[in-house]
Amino acid sequence: MPTGNKKKNQLVPEPALRRMPCYLSYLKLAQKEGMKHISSTFIARDMGVDPTQVTKDLSYTSIVGKTRVGYEVEPLIEELESFLGFTVVDEAYLFGVGSLGTALLHDHGLKQFGLKVIAAFDVNPEVVGKTIEGVPIYHIDEFKNKNRTGAIIGILTVPVGNSQEVTSIMVEGGIKAIWNFTPVTIKVDDDIVVQNTSLYAHLAVMFNRLKVKSSSSK
Amino acid sequence: MPTGNKKKNQLVPEPALRRMPCYLSYLKLAQKEGMKHISSTFIARDMGVDPTQVTKDLSYTSIVGKTRVGYEVEPLIEELESFLGFTVVDEAYLFGVGSLGTALLHDHGLKQFGLKVIAAFDVNPEVVGKTIEGVPIYHIDEFKNKNRTGAIIGILTVPVGNSQEVTSIMVEGGIKAIWNFTPVTIKVDDDIVVQNTSLYAHLAVMFNRLKVKSSSSK
Repeated sequence: MPTGNKKKNQLVPEPALRRMPCYLSYLKLAQKEGMKHISSTFIARDMGVDPTQVTKDLSYTSIVGKTRVGYEVEPLIEELESFLGFTVVDEAYLFGVGSLGTALLHDHGLKQFGLKVIAAFDVNPEVVGKTIEGVPIYHIDEFKNKNRTGAIIGILTVPVGNSQEVTSIMVEGGIKAIWNFTPVTIKVDDDIVVQNTSLYAHLAVMFNRLKVKSSSSK
Repeated sequence: MPTGNKKKNQLVPEPALRRMPCYLSYLKLAQKEGMKHISSTFIARDMGVDPTQVTKDLSYTSIVGKTRVGYEVEPLIEELESFLGFTVVDEAYLFGVGSLGTALLHDHGLKQFGLKVIAAFDVNPEVVGKTIEGVPIYHIDEFKNKNRTGAIIGILTVPVGNSQEVTSIMVEGGIKAIWNFTPVTIKVDDDIVVQNTSLYAHLAVMFNRLKVKSSSSK
């Protein structure tokens, strides 16, 4: 039986946390193919990482592999899903129903991974009052007035110029974790969690790598 | 006049590349507020990085700041946009019109940053033949048969179990850069650019950080 509670509350290094959903996907595939046990060497080979890295990453969970046998696939999947917070659905608010915000409301994948957007906020009269994929859109003032007991996760997809202002409103209204999709470095107190995911920064990296490759192959 | 061509083809470190879109957003805000010149110290203070870091990052472009005056805002914006590849629109294909794929087709932001999806591919008869936001969806076999001269950028949003298979089809069909939104580590030859953006891995990091903070504040 996993006794993960104590372990779950430790700070796991970000690179390890980022590799864990890859292990999870990989294990689910292995399970589909009928595998009951799997060794770290096997996982490592298929994922292009070092076997000791796999063992170390998985040691943050409460599951331990057995010599010669490896990990039991099913319990490891269950433990990873729970460890990563994907089994409990957390509620979230979305701030900014522009293009990217609308796109995220269309992504049912988030819910599968434990995040359910229960309301969205904007100032644009063209979207306020509407519903997208079942999520109601309110004026941001509604959040200011009402939210003190709702979701503590906020997704930030407002225009660059409003990022810091909306961040302050979010924190003021009780948001404890901000998933920041804007390219802006938002400022918050130390007790607020910020996860930056700037899609366009990733795009910039890809464009540069592509240019370098095309120029070197000429 | 920027003479950036040689510079643009050098391999810029990823952390610098990722900060550049932040500088760009910041500079656009400054421009809106009427600023003509800006110093690296000023940018650094507002973005929470070191001034020497700002100078170093911006030195990858062809723009140089002047002592006491700093950078000219407008030319720096133009140079950054061009340097990051945001001014030239690159065409791309999207592979996998599921939930996340559909979401990305709804995101007009990509086009603003220089990426235009011109066609999407799937195998699901419920989506093949349809159009989303003006983008036609074809059966993947159409890509196999026809594409040898089209887009060289591919966005990968297929289910985990098909990631590697579709990657091979993409590369076979002439794709040179893959923006991988799946949590799978895809295998490609060295001449192919891969940019990984696993939203759900970011979500896992955020969940863990939030748990650690909530448990430490109890």
